[in-house]
Amino acid sequence: MRHHDLVVIGAGSGNTVIDDSFADLDVAIVEERWFGGTCLNAGCIPSKMLAYTAHVARTVREAGAYDVDAELRAVRWRAARDRVFGRLDAERDSGRRGREHEDRVTVYEGRARFTGPRTLRIGRADGSVDVSAGQIVLAAGGRPLVPGPVAESGLPYETSDTVMRIDAPPRRLAILGGGYIAAELAEVFAEAGSSVTIVEKEERLLGPQDETVAERFTELVRSRYDLRLGREVTAVAGTPGALRLALDDGSTVEADTLLVAVGRVPNSDRLNLDAAGIATHDDGRVIVDRHQRTTADGVFALGDICSPVPLKHVANREAEVVAHNLRHPEDLIAADHERVPAAVFTQPPIASVGLTEQDCRDRGLDCLVGTAGYGDIAYGWAMEDDTGFCKVLAEPGTGRLLGAHLMGAEAPTLIQPLVLALTLGIDAATLARSPYWIHPALTEIVENALLDLDL
Amino acid sequence: MRHHDLVVIGAGSGNTVIDDSFADLDVAIVEERWFGGTCLNAGCIPSKMLAYTAHVARTVREAGAYDVDAELRAVRWRAARDRVFGRLDAERDSGRRGREHEDRVTVYEGRARFTGPRTLRIGRADGSVDVSAGQIVLAAGGRPLVPGPVAESGLPYETSDTVMRIDAPPRRLAILGGGYIAAELAEVFAEAGSSVTIVEKEERLLGPQDETVAERFTELVRSRYDLRLGREVTAVAGTPGALRLALDDGSTVEADTLLVAVGRVPNSDRLNLDAAGIATHDDGRVIVDRHQRTTADGVFALGDICSPVPLKHVANREAEVVAHNLRHPEDLIAADHERVPAAVFTQPPIASVGLTEQDCRDRGLDCLVGTAGYGDIAYGWAMEDDTGFCKVLAEPGTGRLLGAHLMGAEAPTLIQPLVLALTLGIDAATLARSPYWIHPALTEIVENALLDLDL
Repeated sequence: MRHHDLVVIGAGSGNTVIDDSFADLDVAIVEERWFGGTCLNAGCIPSKMLAYTAHVARTVREAGAYDVDAELRAVRWRAARDRVFGRLDAERDSGRRGREHEDRVTVYEGRARFTGPRTLRIGRADGSVDVSAGQIVLAAGGRPLVPGPVAESGLPYETSDTVMRIDAPPRRLAILGGGYIAAELAEVFAEAGSSVTIVEKEERLLGPQDETVAERFTELVRSRYDLRLGREVTAVAGTPGALRLALDDGSTVEADTLLVAVGRVPNSDRLNLDAAGIATHDDGRVIVDRHQRTTADGVFALGDICSPVPLKHVANREAEVVAHNLRHPEDLIAADHERVPAAVFTQPPIASVGLTEQDCRDRGLDCLVGTAGYGDIAYGWAMEDDTGFCKVLAEPGTGRLLGAHLMGAEAPTLIQPLVLALTLGIDAATLARSPYWIHPALTEIVENALLDLDL
Repeated sequence: MRHHDLVVIGAGSGNTVIDDSFADLDVAIVEERWFGGTCLNAGCIPSKMLAYTAHVARTVREAGAYDVDAELRAVRWRAARDRVFGRLDAERDSGRRGREHEDRVTVYEGRARFTGPRTLRIGRADGSVDVSAGQIVLAAGGRPLVPGPVAESGLPYETSDTVMRIDAPPRRLAILGGGYIAAELAEVFAEAGSSVTIVEKEERLLGPQDETVAERFTELVRSRYDLRLGREVTAVAGTPGALRLALDDGSTVEADTLLVAVGRVPNSDRLNLDAAGIATHDDGRVIVDRHQRTTADGVFALGDICSPVPLKHVANREAEVVAHNLRHPEDLIAADHERVPAAVFTQPPIASVGLTEQDCRDRGLDCLVGTAGYGDIAYGWAMEDDTGFCKVLAEPGTGRLLGAHLMGAEAPTLIQPLVLALTLGIDAATLARSPYWIHPALTEIVENALLDLDL
């Protein structure tokens, strides 16, 4: 049995654990699918690249609002797809080749399963190999969840893993789910020409967002998509390319293509973790302590397989923590899982950090609410924007910021000073009044929301 | 002689001094031209509104880079102009009417000149009026500087006061000056169809910016405009609509319209300040102490007539300071004139705060330089951006941030966490590593520049 000092399972965020400080170790990386992981190959990056293309198409379509006379002739889907994945596949391949050329790193392409504590069998195209390890990092990520009625139908469906690589936008696209992945991909395909129907079991899209954001976003896109809210799919029938979804109210949705985007599950069930004494939560996430240590000695985990916040910037931070803790067992560090910002790259984009107003209500926390609209700042006039807004939540008395929520142009950028303030404990009045806020930049929306707090 | 408790000269930023806390006073506002001042009528706001229109036009023209097949048919200049000024003129008029309807506020439309300490003669359309005041606020702003050869030619020219309101973009527009006003308006008219020539006495556009920004911006726009750098105009000849500018190297520029944008001067020379004992700097700015007090008792000043940083967000802050100091002579406050951020709303936009690299060199300050390119972050891939960058300067040893400079999409928004850090003394390592930076948002450019510092 081949022994390695360290085996990393999963070459997404897991791959970033291994830097020069590991040069003295015999390291192996196991990857069953694609170097770079979900983010590079089927997640954040291609979706944002395609979303930006959709953004450009939408800008062309709406140019008349700015007295620019323009015609949108077509979105060249296949060219956009090839541009995006030509770049990303090259990144993936160069990442893999870079590792393969390192003397002290062994790359195994295959699926790892535990055979015992810190021992693995890796199934590869040319047969399996058994390895043992001094330390192991689980970074095997997650995958799209496929609901029973879809899986049982035997009919074809797409997920975020596959849909961005299809040859042409479907004429009629049905999307199961109304979260951020569904919202982003709905837009990508709608701008590319698809007629989109969204089936979501809640009454609003983007349910986990602050209620004002979720409400307003849902209202905004109601004219763009056929929204079937408060509905679940009970069966999928028809034939490939002519699907018929039965909903729980007796209605149906006809579609050429079905995209399943109801959530993701950790890949922990594929690793035979029991054999290694690695425990999981009921939802499948590997249990880790605050230092990213699993219940098995010498085994760490990071990213979507364990994280309560399955976002790439969190996985990156956890990877830094694991890299440190692997080498410094006497000086363990931890990743912050509070105050994690997140963004949805729709039009308008959305960004948030900290508590929502419903979180505060659920926790019985008094909170002050400050809001400001893009329609009330000069740059919002320039953008003719009368829907965007910023909402900030603060503790009465202290002005401590509890959360912040933005929907509107540049939201994922605008949120950053608020993230900084929440993280470092900068109170709302100091944030509003100490720094200058450039006039007439979009940042005035944040300044105004802060000044709107009744401190 | 009519006496007022307080007279404010200038209804731009000066108008914001007067809030409910002055309701017990007899207040007068004198405005000779337009309520709302330069910003609303001829400055930040209309230029940004027209620049956004140019941005949309450019996006349409460059849509092909994102595989969006689009045609730019026309920029409807007159419609854009009417949209912009329809909105802004209405704002201006409603601002004036609002003041006119206030019982305790008198509005004088005319030009004020001092006749003695705290006494003024106001020349109005229907004759002059003399007033005296308990306190006076000078907020009469500034105006475009017109160089000798232009003024002496007797030929027509435009300035930022007038050019945005013209009926049609000129076929050939010559711009004197290469600062931020010139750069923004060059783009507005180039996208509207004008062929633009820029005559600038320095070798680079945007000279006061960090040298890397100025260099790269100049290179970027070299293909867009006919740049005559290192050149000055010696004479203007020809006839209205067919101007011929003679440059100091013997070359000429032919143009239908001439836009003068070589700088601005304070309006202090129009107020007969000597009569009131109000002193000025050699450059015409009214001398104020850090509490915005002029050399004359009971006379304050704010904004472009006195400020070392003639930007609207600074004038706003100075107006807050004056409003406070007028009412609280025993508890005077001051505006911060360091760490003032600024933005140029070109494509790409530019933003900066603190020292430039050449400032550090000139002051003999050691500084670390961290840089990152949009081409190296995921959202930069989405935007196909290979020219944008962020540059941060920090003190060796401490990591104290000295300055930050951005050129690229969303720069005026991206700068804000850096402004906050400079203002509150958050060091570079803390700024980089404490908060999360959303992946794959544009904010990663700032994170990467910070991480590039050799701390």
